[in-house]
Amino acid sequence: MTARRPSDGLVIALDAAVADRAAGADQIAASAVAAAVVAGAARALKHYPGNRFLLFGDEAAIAGALAAGGADMRALAEVAEVRPAPLPAMPLAVDALQAGAADCVVSGAPTGALTAAAAGALPTLAEIDRPAVAWFFPTRRGESVMLDLGAQADCGPAHLVQFALMGALFAETVLGLVSPSIGVLTGASEALKGHEVVSEAVARLSAATLPGRFHGLVQGDDIAAGTVDVVVTDGFTGNVARKAAAGAAALSQDWQRRAVRSSPLAGLGHRIGRSAFTKLGQRVDPRRYDGAAVLGLQGLCVRAPSLTDVDAIAIANAIGVAVDLLRGGFNDRLSAAARRLRPDTVGGAAATRAIEMAGA
Amino acid sequence: MTARRPSDGLVIALDAAVADRAAGADQIAASAVAAAVVAGAARALKHYPGNRFLLFGDEAAIAGALAAGGADMRALAEVAEVRPAPLPAMPLAVDALQAGAADCVVSGAPTGALTAAAAGALPTLAEIDRPAVAWFFPTRRGESVMLDLGAQADCGPAHLVQFALMGALFAETVLGLVSPSIGVLTGASEALKGHEVVSEAVARLSAATLPGRFHGLVQGDDIAAGTVDVVVTDGFTGNVARKAAAGAAALSQDWQRRAVRSSPLAGLGHRIGRSAFTKLGQRVDPRRYDGAAVLGLQGLCVRAPSLTDVDAIAIANAIGVAVDLLRGGFNDRLSAAARRLRPDTVGGAAATRAIEMAGA
Repeated sequence: MTARRPSDGLVIALDAAVADRAAGADQIAASAVAAAVVAGAARALKHYPGNRFLLFGDEAAIAGALAAGGADMRALAEVAEVRPAPLPAMPLAVDALQAGAADCVVSGAPTGALTAAAAGALPTLAEIDRPAVAWFFPTRRGESVMLDLGAQADCGPAHLVQFALMGALFAETVLGLVSPSIGVLTGASEALKGHEVVSEAVARLSAATLPGRFHGLVQGDDIAAGTVDVVVTDGFTGNVARKAAAGAAALSQDWQRRAVRSSPLAGLGHRIGRSAFTKLGQRVDPRRYDGAAVLGLQGLCVRAPSLTDVDAIAIANAIGVAVDLLRGGFNDRLSAAARRLRPDTVGGAAATRAIEMAGA
Repeated sequence: MTARRPSDGLVIALDAAVADRAAGADQIAASAVAAAVVAGAARALKHYPGNRFLLFGDEAAIAGALAAGGADMRALAEVAEVRPAPLPAMPLAVDALQAGAADCVVSGAPTGALTAAAAGALPTLAEIDRPAVAWFFPTRRGESVMLDLGAQADCGPAHLVQFALMGALFAETVLGLVSPSIGVLTGASEALKGHEVVSEAVARLSAATLPGRFHGLVQGDDIAAGTVDVVVTDGFTGNVARKAAAGAAALSQDWQRRAVRSSPLAGLGHRIGRSAFTKLGQRVDPRRYDGAAVLGLQGLCVRAPSLTDVDAIAIANAIGVAVDLLRGGFNDRLSAAARRLRPDTVGGAAATRAIEMAGA
């Protein structure tokens, strides 16, 4: 499905409709969404030349956006095909990926919907039992990746081991980290009742040949601290941890803003120091960091950041993640890494799969 | 064990040693720890008169702190008994609670150690299967409580239902909320594979007679948003969520500080607006909010906030939580609420206990 050679250029199936985006989506006109998505594609094409685009959505809206002019837009129009699609357009983009007409899907559809569509249409890689949703984010030390973020609630040790492989290769391929460190997230004090799945995953990862360095257990506060480059956890815990962190950071920023507004002096102080805070805003820009990638399937799907409005920079960054993964040979390397796991670990994965099949 | 009537005054077993406090504890002299803890007790006695204290720790250090003078300290010295204890002193305080010599324990020992000691020494309440660690915190809307935070990694639906009771009564008794709203934390998108324990807990809570209003499912970002007054989850997820939130908030504040330091103008602006940020600091003061309570046992243990240094205000706040719970008849009300649960829910709890006993 990804047999097309890099020299051919990649084909990116881009959801230019995104009507199933969360709250407020109804109010965004189709033309505004298409304009932002198409502008993002033009921006991405400039950074990653040689690729082609399939643009799924409202034909008139997309055509209008492509005709908007400018050198970047004209360059895009030469390598883009419009694929008329009803709302939501994402499933048709996934169909194109499944049919081999595209190398990846980039969409702003909700992660759950995108993951369900991808997992429904695409088989897992031969050595991988389940897909995982990976999220990357800025930390105190740099950038890290955490997975799974919602594809699978109930995970066995073999799944966590596979997530560790995916996360380490993602950290190498997209974040550019060498021999990334890997930690398994835990929440229970060691003095108390343990979590058997986590303990078993730690035992297997300690013994496994990994595309990275196994650190051991990490806790919730290690996520933002950047203690490890890859945080491995089940989809239930990962989803909670990500949203808990996002909520706490947003509240902290909100309180800062309220403090600024609470007195004229504070407001004056903030205006004086504004440029430094603008730099801070760039550092934690959600247009860079709020996306996610569905890994482990025979085909790559990247979710563009979940902003309140569709944003060209966010779309371009998501396309960049997809291109990095494809050009870096992510799936081939993941399959190879999974095959290199020691026999006991592979046995674990195979045993889990056998149990699942028996239970299905 | 808590048969002593409120009119008799309460007896608070206070850990005045706290040597097993996390990093850096070794460097804090016994006399400094005792001075801070004893000052906290004096402060608490002023706010909650009529109670007595058992002070566990280094005899000379505590006696020295009590002799420091001042009207509040002299009042404390009249109602305080020193109980010499080696390090860590917390287990002897728990022993006093178990023996009926005290009504509660307040300690700065790590939550895991305190919970393990309490669960080892004290039976659960008759209608409760397991203890839970409750944490309360400021939100966008006010204050909320989340539990369990680490007492139990693997929870069944019946445990989550019992946590909901404990949390709602804690919200009433300590936070002063009327008919608190209760949510069960979930991390998986509904479109994907669910989490059976959570689904079953939601079904039971929807049908149960609760000391509060059942809201339904909540997600990680609802914690800081204050969507509900009580967030119910297993100890693994709760511990991860709390620490993930704390880490993200700390990083957000750290970035703000770095932005302030990054330019002379920003630093000037910060100094001009400093008073507003001081107010913000009071609002989210960890001395108020970083504590935890071990609930569900025949005896109450409260953990003082985990600050880098022992702090009198933090100790006084933790004592205040314990006094509120005791004066509010928390345990009697919890037992009564557990008895009022519908037969099917009680049956669930009893069935779980039977399974556990069979497995033990």
